[in-house]
Amino acid sequence: MSRNPSHRPTDRPGPQAGEAPAINPTLNKGPVNQRVPEGDNRPRLICDDCGFIHYDNPKIVVGAVCLHEDRILLCRRAIPPRIGYWTLPAGYLELNESTEAGAAREAFEEATARIEIERLLAVYNIPRISQVQLIYRARLLSPEVAAGEESQEVALFRWEDIPRQEIAFPSVHWALDHHRETRALRDFPPFGNPAGETGHY
Amino acid sequence: MSRNPSHRPTDRPGPQAGEAPAINPTLNKGPVNQRVPEGDNRPRLICDDCGFIHYDNPKIVVGAVCLHEDRILLCRRAIPPRIGYWTLPAGYLELNESTEAGAAREAFEEATARIEIERLLAVYNIPRISQVQLIYRARLLSPEVAAGEESQEVALFRWEDIPRQEIAFPSVHWALDHHRETRALRDFPPFGNPAGETGHY
Repeated sequence: MSRNPSHRPTDRPGPQAGEAPAINPTLNKGPVNQRVPEGDNRPRLICDDCGFIHYDNPKIVVGAVCLHEDRILLCRRAIPPRIGYWTLPAGYLELNESTEAGAAREAFEEATARIEIERLLAVYNIPRISQVQLIYRARLLSPEVAAGEESQEVALFRWEDIPRQEIAFPSVHWALDHHRETRALRDFPPFGNPAGETGHY
Repeated sequence: MSRNPSHRPTDRPGPQAGEAPAINPTLNKGPVNQRVPEGDNRPRLICDDCGFIHYDNPKIVVGAVCLHEDRILLCRRAIPPRIGYWTLPAGYLELNESTEAGAAREAFEEATARIEIERLLAVYNIPRISQVQLIYRARLLSPEVAAGEESQEVALFRWEDIPRQEIAFPSVHWALDHHRETRALRDFPPFGNPAGETGHY
């Protein structure tokens, strides 16, 4: 393992969607060089200054199709990417959190919504950005919702009123359609990506 | 944000199960101090030397109950934790990998097994160690299996021959039982943790 500072690249790998490592360019660079650690079989980002190995693995996004009677909760995004577009309440699962608890937390953070998780609707894979999305069907415990910090506005939409031209991500379309297909069912296997779809946008 | 080196703790947070950041104690410490980054709402590990923010999120474990006729593939672990105990082929999902591809890769790495994924059997949450496990039911394309680097031995077990006293983790018991319950079914909703079970061992 070389610790020669001249080996540091001037270009750093870009941040994942949704996060921006704030590296101060006047200081050192953090774990930016790729090497295979001893006993491992693939390259990891390693810090040449301190030896820290950054085991970067896919992240879990948890979210829900939240229903009040026949209306679906959507949130208009106030943060990048896709500011101003509509999405389901969803976000990164946090440490020591179950997937159901994470989906409920996101619904509260983005729309002050209290929900009851009913069923796993879908597991979507978006390998290009190393995301696995677990999307649940949930019931709103009250129709009182309001925009959280990450939302410009939130609203409950009837199916025919969903702003399909202003949806933030392909997987939001998938989840809406998959919910529609199974809305009368109690038990069903979760959906995956629609055939041939990668989630790229 | 303080960058005072005297604020560095002498105790570092322990590694997650299955990984060991190799920090050289004669150098600096890497992202070991917890602070809330600007625009965030919870503490993250930050490196005082370079400002790198270590967004640590739960990790995804992918695995499979792999079947040849009525026999189930198990692997005797050659690595910690639980060396010498039997487990299903499973491991951490890697970047840019789909969950199905990851489960198939693990079966090959641990048992040189070629498999076809059939169905999502379960989504288990083990929040104490920040793990989400996606366990599939899969078909072995051939009964020819052999121990990979992380296995002492591998074998195909009839149900009644499974070494229940030498199983590595609670979630392996869960997956075996959940498979047994649904082995004749084509479509079913995935299982979660058995009621009241945390996966702690």
